[in-house]
Formats: sequence, structure tokens, C-alpha cells
Amino acid sequence: MNPGEPLKTLYWDKGRLYLLDQRLLPGECSYLSCATAGEVAAAVKQMVVRGAPAIGISAAFGLVLAARQAAERGDGPGELCETLRREAALLLDARPTAVNLAWALERMQGKLSEAASLPSGLIAESLESEALAILEEDLATNRRIGLHGAALLPDAANVLTHCNAGALATAGYGTALAVIRAAVAEGKIVHVYVDETRPLLQGARLTALELVEEKIPATLITDNCAAFLMSRGRVDLVITGADRIAANGDTANKIGTYGLAVLARHHRIPFYIAAPCSTIDRRLAAGEQIVIEERDPTEITRIHGQALAPATVTAYNPAFDVTPAELISALITERGVVCRPGRAGIEKLFRD
Amino acid sequence: MNPGEPLKTLYWDKGRLYLLDQRLLPGECSYLSCATAGEVAAAVKQMVVRGAPAIGISAAFGLVLAARQAAERGDGPGELCETLRREAALLLDARPTAVNLAWALERMQGKLSEAASLPSGLIAESLESEALAILEEDLATNRRIGLHGAALLPDAANVLTHCNAGALATAGYGTALAVIRAAVAEGKIVHVYVDETRPLLQGARLTALELVEEKIPATLITDNCAAFLMSRGRVDLVITGADRIAANGDTANKIGTYGLAVLARHHRIPFYIAAPCSTIDRRLAAGEQIVIEERDPTEITRIHGQALAPATVTAYNPAFDVTPAELISALITERGVVCRPGRAGIEKLFRD
Repeated sequence: MNPGEPLKTLYWDKGRLYLLDQRLLPGECSYLSCATAGEVAAAVKQMVVRGAPAIGISAAFGLVLAARQAAERGDGPGELCETLRREAALLLDARPTAVNLAWALERMQGKLSEAASLPSGLIAESLESEALAILEEDLATNRRIGLHGAALLPDAANVLTHCNAGALATAGYGTALAVIRAAVAEGKIVHVYVDETRPLLQGARLTALELVEEKIPATLITDNCAAFLMSRGRVDLVITGADRIAANGDTANKIGTYGLAVLARHHRIPFYIAAPCSTIDRRLAAGEQIVIEERDPTEITRIHGQALAPATVTAYNPAFDVTPAELISALITERGVVCRPGRAGIEKLFRD
Repeated sequence: MNPGEPLKTLYWDKGRLYLLDQRLLPGECSYLSCATAGEVAAAVKQMVVRGAPAIGISAAFGLVLAARQAAERGDGPGELCETLRREAALLLDARPTAVNLAWALERMQGKLSEAASLPSGLIAESLESEALAILEEDLATNRRIGLHGAALLPDAANVLTHCNAGALATAGYGTALAVIRAAVAEGKIVHVYVDETRPLLQGARLTALELVEEKIPATLITDNCAAFLMSRGRVDLVITGADRIAANGDTANKIGTYGLAVLARHHRIPFYIAAPCSTIDRRLAAGEQIVIEERDPTEITRIHGQALAPATVTAYNPAFDVTPAELISALITERGVVCRPGRAGIEKLFRD
């Protein structure tokens, strides 16, 4: 990594997937090398890598690893396909809420079906090309999200963001942060309020890091502070990423997002979601069908090995919430902006 | 401290004020002994003791310490009064938002004026009696707040609270937690969602501790999670304490309170403030005149000596926010409940 170069979320090198261990940021920059699909699934579950697009890409490479191993073992195409079905189920199971995991695995399965008549070695190569294409396309997608979204920002804007929808949540450039990066590149004066985002502090650890490294003016706040800033007129708009968007526009994202959307509405502040179309789950009619992952309560009760609360207290740790479409001013995708997103506007993204 | 006995926030023994060092809870139970007003002021500023009523009581004893020292030095009544004026200014300066500090100091000054013609030793004794009276009265006040508030709770209730408005914020029994304790004592089935309350985690560290010790069912959540729980119908009402209530009912309390009030309104959930009348600042017409304390950003960026964010990031750490009266369903005081609090209803508390 050259100084000044942004941190790479993940990369593929000589048949291994390298994941930046985001649990250690901002203190330590260390890559975890994954040689098997199981190692990728574990890394996703443990949030070595996180962010809906990034875990989709990781899962795609997880299948590449499984295919290469099968080919090296001398498995025939039939056995290889069987192995990949099993490994795909394992990867899909790693985290339930973000749909990009399912999206990437389905795309890989599609490629596998096309290549199923080839020898195992060629199937593995074909899957590797597909995973690399997903990685490349994610970057291009994010650039387009940035351009579409930047047009929504005034020339000088105080933007509030939650969690990390940045380069570290994607192959690079980010989704919500893509909009901010593109606006800055266009010469707009942007200042970002960064919600620290308890319990895992992706705002404090990751978003603040990305903004500091790019010298984009940023102020870290507790999640508690957003309403106060809004009441003082210090927030012009809110942008977050998304983990799953239902066909009607209801959006699952990091816990706390829904509260921000309610607060934004109360203060008449625009609330935007920035996400690739791969985050849209057209099979889900509405947000109440989205499965909300519940994570280990010790993520709340302990930090750096120290207790933050009495040992015997019960804690509840849902990782996501659902923002109803009616609270979303616009959905910013690589295919354009859907204002006041609803079923028709979202369906149009896939027709054009 | 006997096992099963609630933690004492502070006590006065043989001419010294002992403050439970709340910064160390829940891990360690240790009392800081204060021998001078300056030590009390420092303890208030550093949040060894916190909570509007508790810092008022502490400040009162700070003046007792100053008076006793003056008497022991052989200062005459004139000198003693002069010293106390200086020390009162120092104590008042320790934290700007909670009005109970000013309230307690003014009450002590009133006693000083009455006793000013006595010898210094008797002045000190008279002030000691007054501080002990403030301490005793706080406990009795909180019991009455509890009784008045408990009537507002249904027979089975999921209550959300923020920060610590418990025994540890007062001489004992609490304000918001007094309502919960009294409802439980009346046989109501109460479950409490405890906001962890970043940055200093008074919810996780203090409120959770009080509830666990009294075996009142409680679930710790991140501050982010409140809106999600409300959207799922899992919160029946919200109760918090207060640091300063303006004459029109606008209420300053721990940062995050205002956001909860907005969320409660959106979800049509009652939002209550429980506080003694000493928290009402009748000289302030409205909330926008309340000074909001800004604390050290490292409260956000570091914990247990470890960095939570990049070293160079800017952080903003206001300790309080202001909830407009129109979002408050009722103000619960020792003199009764003011529904939809406003200037007239609040003034009535002081007339009856």
C-alpha cells in the first residue's frame, strides 16, 4: 500500500483472497488471507469484511476458491457443481440481512450453469473471471452512484452519514461516501458529520478514517447527537448506504438508520439512500419481510476486552433496522436517482 | 455497604464528603473523600458525581467544607462570608447546564444570610444542617416523584429510559427510576429498555447496575436501537430525568433525549420527564436560553485508554440537548404531574 493510496478493502492475488481486517482499524492495517470458502464465510460472519457490496464480492471469490480446490483435487464437473452448491449455502448463511451476498452467489451460479459442460479447471477459471468482473463492476457502479448523487448536494453542504458506506464497504469509492467524494471532486464544499455507529463503531473507525485520509472535513459525533445538530440547523441532508431494499423501497441498513430518517423528516431535511441496484431485492414486496440479523450482545457490553456494563445484564443487539420508503427522499443508484422511491420507480430502474 | 443495600451516591461523615466514584462503575466501588470545596468542584467537573440533584447536594456540602475550614482557621463571619461567595462561584462554574447546582448554592446562601450574625463556628454548623436537610429532602422528594409517576404507568409496561436518572443521580431512589421503582412496588410488571447513553455510558454502567441489583427486568440497547424498538411496538413509554427545565417546560437533559422525544411523538408513545421542582429554572423563559455544556472530545474518541477513532479526527461532544415542551407528554414532580407542561401548569406547581 503506497502512502496516500486509499486502503483496499480486498484483493485477489495468486489464487487467494486477501481481506483487510476491518475489526482492527483504525489502529492496525492487516490483511487476512483466505484459501477456502469456509474461511471467507467465517471472515464475513466475524465482520473482518463488512458492507453489503464488499461481502457480496467476497462470497463470489469464496466460490472461486472452492472451484479451484475441486479442480486441483481432480473432481469432475458434476462433483465440482455439487461442492459449489454446498459452499454457496454456507456463504449465504454467513449474514442474513444484506442481499448482495445472495445476488453475487446467484450471479456466480449463473456462470457455473453456463460453464458446467467444461472441464473442472476451465470452470474454475471462468468463475474467477466472473468474480473479478463483479469486483471491477462494483468500482464502476460506485463512480456512477457518486455522479448521480452529487447533483443532489447544494454547493455547500453539511452532510450526516451513519455507519460506513465508503470504500471499505465496497470494492472502493463507496456508495454514500461516493456521493460525498464526487461532490467534493466537483468543487462543492462538503463537511461531514460522522455518526460513530454503536456498537461496532464503523463510523468512528472506518468512515472517519476514510474522510481524514482524503482530507474531507469531518466531525465525529455520538449517534445521540444527530437530533440536536438537526434542531440547530447544522445538517443539510442525510445519506446512508443500504443492505437490502425491498421492491417498494423500504430499506434495511445499519441499526440507527431508521431513527435518523424519522429525525430528518421531523426537521424537514432530505434523507437519501445510496446503493447499487444489486442491493435491491425485487422478490421482497416490503420491508417487514427483511430478516434482521441479531448479533452477540457482548458487542454492546464489552470493548477491547473490558466490560462496559454489569456482567449479568441482558443486552439486545439487532444489527439493522428498516426505513419505510415514505421516509426516503431519494434512492441514488448507478442507473439514476429515484425520487420518493416506490414500486414503480424502482421497477423502472430494471426496465430501462 | 451491606450486600443487597443500594449503592450510596454520597454521604457526609465526620466533616468530610464521600462521593462514590461513578467513573469506575460498574467494575469498581470506590469512594472519593473530599475535604475542600475545591475538591468537590473538581469531582463535579470530572463527573466523579453526576446527575442534577446529586451535584446540587455535593455543592451544598462543598460550601459546608469551606465554612468549617474558615471557622477552624479562626476567620470572622465577614471573612467566612467572603470565602463562601468565592467558593460558591467556583462550585457553580463546575458544570453549566444542570440548574440544581445553582439552586442548592442559592439555598445555602440564604441560610448563610440568616446566620451571618452568628460566630463562624455556628455559621458552619448551621450550613451543615442545611446541607443535610437538602440531602434528606431529596430522598423524600424522589419518593413522591415515584408515587406520582407510577400512576401514569399501565399494569404491564415496557419503559425506555436514557442516561441515569436513578439513585446514583440523586441522594437515592432516583427520578425517572423512582417512577419505575414505585410502579414495581405497586405490583406493576415493568421491563426497562436501557439506552447505553454514549459517550460516557451512564445507561450501561449505572442504570443497568441499579436495575440488575434490584432484579427489575432490564435490557441494555445501543442508543441507535430505540427507534427500531418503537417501530416494532416494543416501547410503551419513555421516561428520562432532567438537568434544567425552563419556565415554559422546555427541558435540557443528556444528549439524545431530544431525539427520543421526537421518535416517541412519531410513534405516538408518551414521553415523560421526571424531576424535582429544584430542576425548574423559572428565570429562564425558554429552552434556547439554556447553556449547553461541551465536553472533551476524547470522551468520544477514546475508551479505557484505547483509541476508538483516528487520532486526527475532530469530534464534537455536547453533553445535553433541549426537548421543547410540546414534545413532553407530562412533567412528573414531587408536587404532582403537569400534563402537556407549559408556563401556566409549571407556575401552578409553585403557587399551590
